[in-house]
Amino acid sequence: MATEATNGAAAGEKNGAATEKAVTFSSLKPQLFVESAKASDAVAFYKAAFGAEEVNRVSHPKRKADQELPLLLSAEIKLGSSSILISDLSDDSTALVKTVGTGLVFCLETEDIEAAIDKAVKAGAVAEGEITEGEGACCGGRVGKVKDPYGIVWLICTPAKKCANVEA
Amino acid sequence: MATEATNGAAAGEKNGAATEKAVTFSSLKPQLFVESAKASDAVAFYKAAFGAEEVNRVSHPKRKADQELPLLLSAEIKLGSSSILISDLSDDSTALVKTVGTGLVFCLETEDIEAAIDKAVKAGAVAEGEITEGEGACCGGRVGKVKDPYGIVWLICTPAKKCANVEA
Repeated sequence: MATEATNGAAAGEKNGAATEKAVTFSSLKPQLFVESAKASDAVAFYKAAFGAEEVNRVSHPKRKADQELPLLLSAEIKLGSSSILISDLSDDSTALVKTVGTGLVFCLETEDIEAAIDKAVKAGAVAEGEITEGEGACCGGRVGKVKDPYGIVWLICTPAKKCANVEA
Repeated sequence: MATEATNGAAAGEKNGAATEKAVTFSSLKPQLFVESAKASDAVAFYKAAFGAEEVNRVSHPKRKADQELPLLLSAEIKLGSSSILISDLSDDSTALVKTVGTGLVFCLETEDIEAAIDKAVKAGAVAEGEITEGEGACCGGRVGKVKDPYGIVWLICTPAKKCANVEA
């Protein structure tokens, strides 16, 4: 079906794209959405169960009147050399998870969100919605979504280090 | 709920365990099971869509009479510094995915599978089934399963580099 990518270029030319920008990803992180407000418990659980280490924690910028504590937009935990993001379901992300059908998505961080989505769509993924300034995903930067032919949703988002509200 | 882990020890003492072995994980890899025999297509798609690089490929040791090609036990692709395993659903893994309710699980590689499962269960995970010499998971080594309180299934398995049938 798909042509093999060489240095991120020259792939997915079935729609006749003559030239294509190379796209590089700085990281891939699975993101787990849990029933709010259990994300803090989940982080504590992964520390106890697997010895995970918390790397940073970003609170949701909005807090509803009936919330004692702000929701977790995302906490990043490290397990070996890999990171996982844990997030409370919020109004934004509940819609996302309903689309996805699971609480687990992949965040791919890149400087060029548009080019990455374009390339994935040319290879056969389906873009979902517009690129938004996201509170429902990753670290709160810009985020776009594609669903691949195998049912996995990929959030293509601003690198965490560029997000103003990352604390650590 | 859970006590914070310190160097992988002293956590999860709610069952009264006096001493506990430290557990270290060499890697964490999401593993995606796809309808057989689409795993090869999926690998080609992730190369084209995201510029993923195939790191190794392990065929299923058994081939049924009506199969032209053996199923993929797992192919490992790299995206940035992270790895994902892609596998064809086989008789073994179909049962796993039915239990899980999704085609996506996490493989945690460790030298001491028993101690890792023990620690996770003490922290609140539920062990699922026995430790098996696995053809349904990871690279074909020994594998045990735990389900965490957030619905994620973790395969606790032999490090890939120790599996005799890893080609690359």
